[in-house]
This record gives sequence, structure tokens and C-alpha cells, in this order.
Amino acid sequence: MKFTINRNQFINQINNVQRAISSKTTIPILTGMKLVATQQGLIVTGSNVDISVQNLIAQDNEDNELEIASLGAIVLPARFFNEIIKKLPGEKFTLEIIENNQTLITSGNSEFTLNGLDANNYPHLPEVENNDQLTIAAEILHQLVNETVFSASTQENRPILTGLHLKITGNELLAVATDSHRLAQRKVTINNQSQNNYDIVIPAKSLVELVRSFRDSEQDVKISISENQILFEFAQTLFYSRLLEGNYPATDRLIPQESSTQLEFEAKTLLDSVERASLLAHAGRNNVVRLVIEKATKKATIYGNSPEVGTVEEDLQPLSLTGEDLEIAFNPDYLKDALRALGDTRLRLEFTAPLHPFTLKPTSDMENFIQLITPVRTF
Amino acid sequence: MKFTINRNQFINQINNVQRAISSKTTIPILTGMKLVATQQGLIVTGSNVDISVQNLIAQDNEDNELEIASLGAIVLPARFFNEIIKKLPGEKFTLEIIENNQTLITSGNSEFTLNGLDANNYPHLPEVENNDQLTIAAEILHQLVNETVFSASTQENRPILTGLHLKITGNELLAVATDSHRLAQRKVTINNQSQNNYDIVIPAKSLVELVRSFRDSEQDVKISISENQILFEFAQTLFYSRLLEGNYPATDRLIPQESSTQLEFEAKTLLDSVERASLLAHAGRNNVVRLVIEKATKKATIYGNSPEVGTVEEDLQPLSLTGEDLEIAFNPDYLKDALRALGDTRLRLEFTAPLHPFTLKPTSDMENFIQLITPVRTF
Repeated sequence: MKFTINRNQFINQINNVQRAISSKTTIPILTGMKLVATQQGLIVTGSNVDISVQNLIAQDNEDNELEIASLGAIVLPARFFNEIIKKLPGEKFTLEIIENNQTLITSGNSEFTLNGLDANNYPHLPEVENNDQLTIAAEILHQLVNETVFSASTQENRPILTGLHLKITGNELLAVATDSHRLAQRKVTINNQSQNNYDIVIPAKSLVELVRSFRDSEQDVKISISENQILFEFAQTLFYSRLLEGNYPATDRLIPQESSTQLEFEAKTLLDSVERASLLAHAGRNNVVRLVIEKATKKATIYGNSPEVGTVEEDLQPLSLTGEDLEIAFNPDYLKDALRALGDTRLRLEFTAPLHPFTLKPTSDMENFIQLITPVRTF
Repeated sequence: MKFTINRNQFINQINNVQRAISSKTTIPILTGMKLVATQQGLIVTGSNVDISVQNLIAQDNEDNELEIASLGAIVLPARFFNEIIKKLPGEKFTLEIIENNQTLITSGNSEFTLNGLDANNYPHLPEVENNDQLTIAAEILHQLVNETVFSASTQENRPILTGLHLKITGNELLAVATDSHRLAQRKVTINNQSQNNYDIVIPAKSLVELVRSFRDSEQDVKISISENQILFEFAQTLFYSRLLEGNYPATDRLIPQESSTQLEFEAKTLLDSVERASLLAHAGRNNVVRLVIEKATKKATIYGNSPEVGTVEEDLQPLSLTGEDLEIAFNPDYLKDALRALGDTRLRLEFTAPLHPFTLKPTSDMENFIQLITPVRTF
């Protein structure tokens, strides 16, 4: 194998492959990046078992300045290879396998010899029948992930909760994440050519990596699903993730259908207030703030306190306040996460009772986006 | 005590006081920030025993919008106080001691009550007779510190080497830092009104904090020195540091007066090459690169290698190469630090023998700035 390529193009195009590679793997060859020179171009692969990413650096894209002198394949130590390429002096570099998987990298006056591994020993990528069942705009998928995955569990005691639950019914995609203390639910429309229904759980971490790989937010993402794998295709990239096994808990019935107290805010204003209230809540042993709603005075007040440090109270001045008096306590971090996910919007908080979950919804789209938070018993 | 102040002004002016305060102190009151409302304005103090910083937020500076309703003093938990002030909603805030050192902070609709401590229990600042013996431009002091302190030791087994050695003779200031593997030496001119001579060692960490506190690089810094303390005065700030006790080793004789091989480079070009060579040196067990200078071919080549990962070699192409053949090995990190300190300049490397220290000097100022590196024996 021998090829010459534009160094910056190469760096940009191995970026998402690099991120799939972990130095903390029990399978030594997976600390490497696989390079295959083919007639179509250079195929670069990285994997950490959970996710695998493959990029084609195309021969026919002139920007790549790719000249393949001979075909072949090698696996190179990913971290060093990446650092070396980033620091090479020239605009281009040449990579050549010399002998025994030793690989010569030259650029300007610099000459590196890297000990590679036999590409035949690199694990095969998962097999997912590449039938483009579903299509979704990258931008919408990106948004959907950011609006939900933070609610997934980060603890492995219930592995299924570390995933995002996707239910596809015709052209409707319903995404739900919950760590059993809070829940985020989002509905969007997709293009489902097969009109099959799907019910899958994707590791939240995989989705975070996936949307980080998106560059051109205008593009479409094609999705194919097999028994235990999902494949996302966009630009020159194939992104595989394993699916989580097991049944996702029924979450429909958790979302209250009615409410007895309602508040409306600009998300940003409420976020600022909660951040202040949580300053002292964090110092206390139980990370809790208290919200008191008084119908008669139309006042909503938030309280935080730490016996050691002090107390805080703030009159929230909601845009609207309707329904009954209420006193409720909750973890302010959950509310902060939910408000950040809601973004710059007007939102509605709906409460039923001090120990029942309450919800946040953007007033412009109450049906399709719901954040739910379970309160804390403080007495 | 009660005062109202512009919040942003306050935040800016407590910044360097805040940085002097450590949360990891064995003296609980030093986790606090001391505020004293006087006729002149608000005096804010922080200390971690090694350094103490005091700022005057002046009454007569209109930007501060400082209105002192009643005089007094309090010590507030610094970390929380700082976070609270940063997040308050209003452009101004009001601070008032209510009772038992409880302090009420109000801004907009927000109301914090912080548990303070009695300011009478706050340790006294060091006594340094404030006689403005020395004056140096902040910019020059800043540069001098950045050019030298990285060579100070970070290990406590020889505490004196964790400091910067300053020798003041008339109007000449000589600064030296060494960790016994490398050394940085800088000479500058100062204004010494007393014409006394001084020989002191200041903790490197104190100096790093000091120069971080500089904002207006045009200003002068006044320096006063006592038995075991040094005081830097600039703008509205008093910055105290303890001095290190003990005799600093004689370093004059370490700097070679003659050389047998000389190379010249642009600092940036050499830095790039050393960074590449060190990529593999870091992977190996002994962090070493090898430099081979060949008089006959006028070639200087740098080599790095890691038995596991691979090798690198690079033809350095110096601007000039004079003297004898040489092969020398050294820690590339020392050379990188020295080159970064030299900045964007043409420099001269001077060697005497494979196991003797070599030096780097800017060609424009060979007398006043010297970096020295001790090589490593590799055979």
C-alpha cells in the first residue's frame, strides 16, 4: 500500500473515525485505526465494539489530492498516528507499508516509521442490511438527541435506561429517555419508506457521538435497522451502533394528562433563577430547591438553602399563573437540564400535586416535546 | 456595614483577590474573603498564607457606583460569594450585615442570606515597610516571569529550587530559575531608588499568580522587600508573597563560557521539529531525543524512538551550522519549554560536549537571556 494525500483533508475526514476509537479497550487491535487503499479511495475505520465508524476518503474528490500508488491495508496505532499527522510539516504526506507491517510516513523533512498491525486481524464490521428503510434530516436528528439523551441513566444497574427508546410507527418517530427520576419525550416526523414499525433502544452514548459527527446539517441521514445493530449513513460515513437488549419500561402512563397549577415563563429567565437557587442547594446535603405558588397573591417563589452557607429566595414573576396553591420540592439540576434542552422559548410548567411529577412543554408545541421531573419528598 | 455597588465592576476587581484564596486551607477563615467598608471605599482581601492580595475598590471611581451607607467588616465564604455575585440578576447589588455576621445580599428579585465570619478573626497581613524601593514596568516583570519560572522545580525535596532567585545590584535585576536539569536566566534593568542590593528567592507559584493579576500592562509595579516578605503594588492592588528561606545554589559557574558546536534557527521552526520528535519519545520509557550534528555535510538531524510504536527522524536545516561534529541526547520537553519561552525569535544553540549542558540564546540579545539544558547519558 502506498498513497499521498492532502494532510488537512485527511485530518478532517478521520475526525469522527478517531473519536470511535478508545485507548481503554480490552481488544488491542481496536486501539488502532484501519486504513484500506481501494480503487474508490481510502477507507478509514475505527471501532470500540459499541460503535464503529467508517469513512470513505474518495479518490474522485479533487480536494483530497489523493494519489494511490498501490492498494493494500494496515492498522496503525490510532493515537500516535493522529498526533503525528497533525504535526507533520508538509501540506501533503505519503504513507507506505515497507515490510512486516512497518509503515513509513513522510512529509517535508520528516520521516516517521510506525509499527502497524495486520489488517486481516481487524474485526469485521457488524452486518446490517443496507436497505435505507428510514430517512431523517441530520438537523432534526441532532436536535432530537440533544433534547432527550441527557435524561437517560448513566448508571449500569438498569442498562436499558442508559439508552434512548425509539418507537417508529409509520412516519412518526417517538423518542423517550428516562433515568426514572426525570423523563424527556420528543416526537418528530421521518420518511419511513418501508412503513414497518420499529421499537428499539440505542445507547445514549452512541447517539451523542453520532450527532457530534454531523458537519453539514442540511444533509439527510439514512437509517437501517437489524436485529441488534443500527446503521446511520450520511455523507461519506457509515456509523454503526449496537442496540440495547431488553424491554424498555412503559412510559406513557407516567405523563400526567391533567394539571391543577400552571405557570408560564421564558425558559431563559427561569433558568437564571433556578441557577441562583441551586447555588446553595448544591452546598447542602440534599440537593433540593422548593417552589411555592400562591394563587391569591399570584406569586411564585423559589427557595434554596444550605444550613452551613445560607439561604436564597427569589420572586419568580411568571408570565402567567393559574390554578391552585402548591408547594413542591425538586432537584434543581433536573430543571436546569430540562430548561437548557428547551432552549430559547416560552414554556409551560404543569403541576398536579406536591408528590406527583410535573411537566415542562414549549407553549408553541405542547404535543411533541415534554420534559417530566419527579419531585422530592422533603418532610 | 451596608453598601451598594456596580456588580460587574465588583466582579472585575475581586478577581485577583479571589485567586489568592484556596479552598484547601487548614485555616478555615482563609476560605473566606474579607470585605471592609471604609471612607476610601471597599477593601477586599484574600490570602492562602503564601500570598495575600488586597484590592481597594475606590469610592471616588464613579464607574464603581459605590454607595457606602454604613462602615464595617465581614468575612464571607469566598467560593459561594463569588458564584452568587456572578449570577445575580441586577446591574448592582446591595450587601448588608444584618445580625450575628449574617449578611444579606440583594439584587433584582433575588435575596441571599450568607453566614459570614467575624472579620476581627481574620489574620493580619504581613508587615512590609512600604517604601517603594524598586520600580519595574509590569510588562517587563510579566515577561521576565514567563521566561524563567517554568524552569523552577515543582518538587518539594529541595524547596529553595521551587523559587525564582532574584539578585538586584544597583539598577540590574538578575533572575534565575533551575530544577537542576535545566536553567533559565534573565537580566533586566529596574529603577532602584535605594541603590541597596538584594538577594532573595520568591516562590515561582506566587510570581505566576502575580503576573496573572496584571491587567494594564503599561503600569509600573512598585516593589518593597522585608526580611521574609515581598510586596508588589500596582493599580489599586497590594500583592504580598512570602520569600523562601535558605541559600540559592551558585548558578554562575554552570553556564559554559565557550562552545565547540553552534547552530542557529528560527525558534518556531525548531519547536515544530522537536514537537514531532518528542511524539515518539513520550511513548518510550526514557523521554529522550537524539541530535546528531555533522560538520562535513552541514546536517543536523533529530531522532526520536519508541521500541513499541516506531521511530522518527528529521533533517533540521539550521540557518547556520559551525564547529565540530556532535551527538547529544536530551529531554525534548525541556527544549520545548525553552523554545516557547524564547518566543518568535532567531536563536543560537551552543554545545561543548555530549555530556555537558548546552545553551539557547536569542541572537539579538545573547547577554541577557540564557536557557540551559543538561543532556542525558544514553549509553
